Amino acid sequence: MQPNDPIIALATPSGAGAIAVIRVSGTNAIGLVAPFFRSVRGKNLEKQQSHTVHLGHIIDGDRLLDEVLTTIFKGPHSYTGEDVVEISCHGSPYIQQQIIQLFLRNGCRTANAGEFTLRAFLNGKIDLSQAEAVADLIASDNEASHQVALQQMRGGFSNEIKMLRDELLNFASLIELELDFAEEDVEFADRGQFKALLAKIQTVLKRLIDSFAVGNVIKNGIPVAIIGEPNVGKSTLLNALLNEERALVSEIAGTTRDTIEDEISIGGIGFRFIDTAGIRETKDVVEGMGIQRTFEKIDKAQVIVYLVDVSNFSDPSAPTLTKADLLQEKLANTAVEIQKITKLNPHKPLIVVLNKVDKISAHVKMDLITGLSTHLQITNTPDPHISIQPLSAKTGEGVDTLKNRLLEYVNTGALRNNETIVTNTRHYNALLKALEEIEKVQLGMEEGLPGDLLSIDIRRALYHFGEITGEITSDDLLGNIFANFCIGK
Amino acid sequence: MQPNDPIIALATPSGAGAIAVIRVSGTNAIGLVAPFFRSVRGKNLEKQQSHTVHLGHIIDGDRLLDEVLTTIFKGPHSYTGEDVVEISCHGSPYIQQQIIQLFLRNGCRTANAGEFTLRAFLNGKIDLSQAEAVADLIASDNEASHQVALQQMRGGFSNEIKMLRDELLNFASLIELELDFAEEDVEFADRGQFKALLAKIQTVLKRLIDSFAVGNVIKNGIPVAIIGEPNVGKSTLLNALLNEERALVSEIAGTTRDTIEDEISIGGIGFRFIDTAGIRETKDVVEGMGIQRTFEKIDKAQVIVYLVDVSNFSDPSAPTLTKADLLQEKLANTAVEIQKITKLNPHKPLIVVLNKVDKISAHVKMDLITGLSTHLQITNTPDPHISIQPLSAKTGEGVDTLKNRLLEYVNTGALRNNETIVTNTRHYNALLKALEEIEKVQLGMEEGLPGDLLSIDIRRALYHFGEITGEITSDDLLGNIFANFCIGK
Repeated sequence: MQPNDPIIALATPSGAGAIAVIRVSGTNAIGLVAPFFRSVRGKNLEKQQSHTVHLGHIIDGDRLLDEVLTTIFKGPHSYTGEDVVEISCHGSPYIQQQIIQLFLRNGCRTANAGEFTLRAFLNGKIDLSQAEAVADLIASDNEASHQVALQQMRGGFSNEIKMLRDELLNFASLIELELDFAEEDVEFADRGQFKALLAKIQTVLKRLIDSFAVGNVIKNGIPVAIIGEPNVGKSTLLNALLNEERALVSEIAGTTRDTIEDEISIGGIGFRFIDTAGIRETKDVVEGMGIQRTFEKIDKAQVIVYLVDVSNFSDPSAPTLTKADLLQEKLANTAVEIQKITKLNPHKPLIVVLNKVDKISAHVKMDLITGLSTHLQITNTPDPHISIQPLSAKTGEGVDTLKNRLLEYVNTGALRNNETIVTNTRHYNALLKALEEIEKVQLGMEEGLPGDLLSIDIRRALYHFGEITGEITSDDLLGNIFANFCIGK
Repeated sequence: MQPNDPIIALATPSGAGAIAVIRVSGTNAIGLVAPFFRSVRGKNLEKQQSHTVHLGHIIDGDRLLDEVLTTIFKGPHSYTGEDVVEISCHGSPYIQQQIIQLFLRNGCRTANAGEFTLRAFLNGKIDLSQAEAVADLIASDNEASHQVALQQMRGGFSNEIKMLRDELLNFASLIELELDFAEEDVEFADRGQFKALLAKIQTVLKRLIDSFAVGNVIKNGIPVAIIGEPNVGKSTLLNALLNEERALVSEIAGTTRDTIEDEISIGGIGFRFIDTAGIRETKDVVEGMGIQRTFEKIDKAQVIVYLVDVSNFSDPSAPTLTKADLLQEKLANTAVEIQKITKLNPHKPLIVVLNKVDKISAHVKMDLITGLSTHLQITNTPDPHISIQPLSAKTGEGVDTLKNRLLEYVNTGALRNNETIVTNTRHYNALLKALEEIEKVQLGMEEGLPGDLLSIDIRRALYHFGEITGEITSDDLLGNIFANFCIGK
């Protein structure tokens, strides 16, 4: 589709660092870089073996640009399948720019977003779904999305699709062959075997389509709405959940987590915590407005966490009677707030987190849990729709239980069993269409449809399989897919 | 000073990109990485040659972390002089973190800032001034600072210092030898030759010390104060100056210039433009305050640019007489403002930029220039202290002349002649102290000081030379120097 003209781009993130890597790919990329590279050992870059590294200087006429390490890869044994040169220079944006400009003036053009990977696809190094997985892999920020992308990049998904496609193609050819002998009424394709294949394809497609629900959760994280008044301890809760991972993260300088407040990986699954205004808090606001927004956010969430600060439920200095009254009043108020939410979201899992339990006695804690259970009519059945979770970020009490409870809401079975999971909407749509066509073929078989009509539906199903792996593509489709890549990949 | 224990760090900038490079250095770094690397061709990493690249997977037990390219460098032929492994992985912060954590759990520790370069120094790959140049090189953002850092990194400066040190050391030894034969009154060191050497050293030291003024300008940029009312066209002026370079910059996606407004490279020299409130503008403010701040900024500047919007100096629709009056009035006002500045800064170069000359006639333009010249008593001598520069960002008129005028204020002679330039304050101080000691030795020679006393001063001078190249160091000094490095370098 495109000639293998030399392209160049910065492959490492922009900004200053110890080193930066500039990538050149294309026919004669090595010959193009060679005149501007002076090896410290007097080596001729063009005569070196593939997969070797050479110390030297990038020179522009008399001007020395930088001391660099240059790695050469000879096509087809490179990422793109073409000759590739990677220049590892000092990580100054000025130097990066100077080197890129030098080669832009001397035969290279700037690579488009994803163009290196596009070339890998066009040159047959990887198929389309593998190419798409590269972008997913770079975007992955938790174990689950990382594993799914990696599996897809290694061809796990493509292989499953290709296998089905090959079997179906085989039958399609036999049925089409029958058409040539229409007068003779022969059957090259065994109808019984064909029905079995269609049933198998249907099962696989349904499993893949179903996996998209999990895939979507894995790719985008599970939305969790946190409801609570200000200062009940939202960020303390998030920190407690993040605790172990954070300890590791902080050891690695240079890795910053801008979204520490909002996105947390628990057990390898991403959870997106959506902060919402408390219900009580919005009472004073013009009726509706504030509550409206809270409920909109709850609507988008898959799990609701209702956070209560129980440290002010009990006043040890108060007389015993007052103490009991205070507790009952607070309990009742809390229950009313929670019921407002459950009434509007009867099927959404809700976890009531009683925060700061380290500040109250074990006795009061028990009173709170039983009292609230009674108010909310929580029974003792396992996996209840509403659950109460006492927690202390300070002592760590309840943190692990909360993590497990959140994970219960994710169907991670498929993930753990290393099954293929569909995360890409484009693949999902193609699979849906393929299933539709397969079911038409099945119906046609039952109705004794003639081979020429069957053949059309089979071809359509094959078309949708081919869309996934890229055997069938259009420039528009490729444009859409690779536009989402970063430059340099 | 430190054992060569294995250290690890991300060498590329943090954040997401196409690829990221993780660097491991230390005794047995290759053996340490090998068990976690599964070559796609079944190669044993430990048996591969230095400077070769290998495709494979990073695995943590059963878990696949990423498909990577692993480059091995065998000590002493590596950056640090130790065994080095560079792992080029997919540029996801999650993956970078997972790989680094894997090796942190398996024998590596996180590298300190600049520790790879520190090891290169400790292992004798580079001297201290070369190590310092690495950080300067990464920080360099214009041609001049880049060239100076590169020259220093390649040993240009060190060689000059080492040569002087060797010659001086030779004489010191001879003079100290004389002390052993003190009774016999012999002279091994030819006093005439020694005086000549001292004079030569003095000359070189003075030249190097003088070069620091240029070096400082190169490293930190030339401060230019722009004075003018709001909307006279400051950003248009900066854009006009930047024009060519920007066209190239925008071609390279991923290179962002946050400080486009403030720092501009002209002819390879960095200029820092300091925005100041106009003088006239501050009239209404409580007397002194606003003007005070403007003058403080002018004080820090090396050049002043006074920007005037001349498009409203002339009203074509006004009757001829009114027109002339208007022009004269505006001219007089402008001249008064400028004189306020020159009175307080009599020795600071000032360029009056008449902006938007494309909006006035050639006739009015000429009137403005001659009128203002008369007011400001500008004579026609070359390189005047005050100059007037008509300019139009729209047509490009005057832009190149302004660039040349700004460059005239920089003594770039040394830079162009490839002379050694001192940019580092530590080196500057060491050179000053060395010069002091050399002058003491010269004085001592004249006064016929005995050899043992001379020898003390010579040793002191040698000490300061050694400080620059790192032959004499302390842990504190190294700590200070390398603390300014980024992690991973």
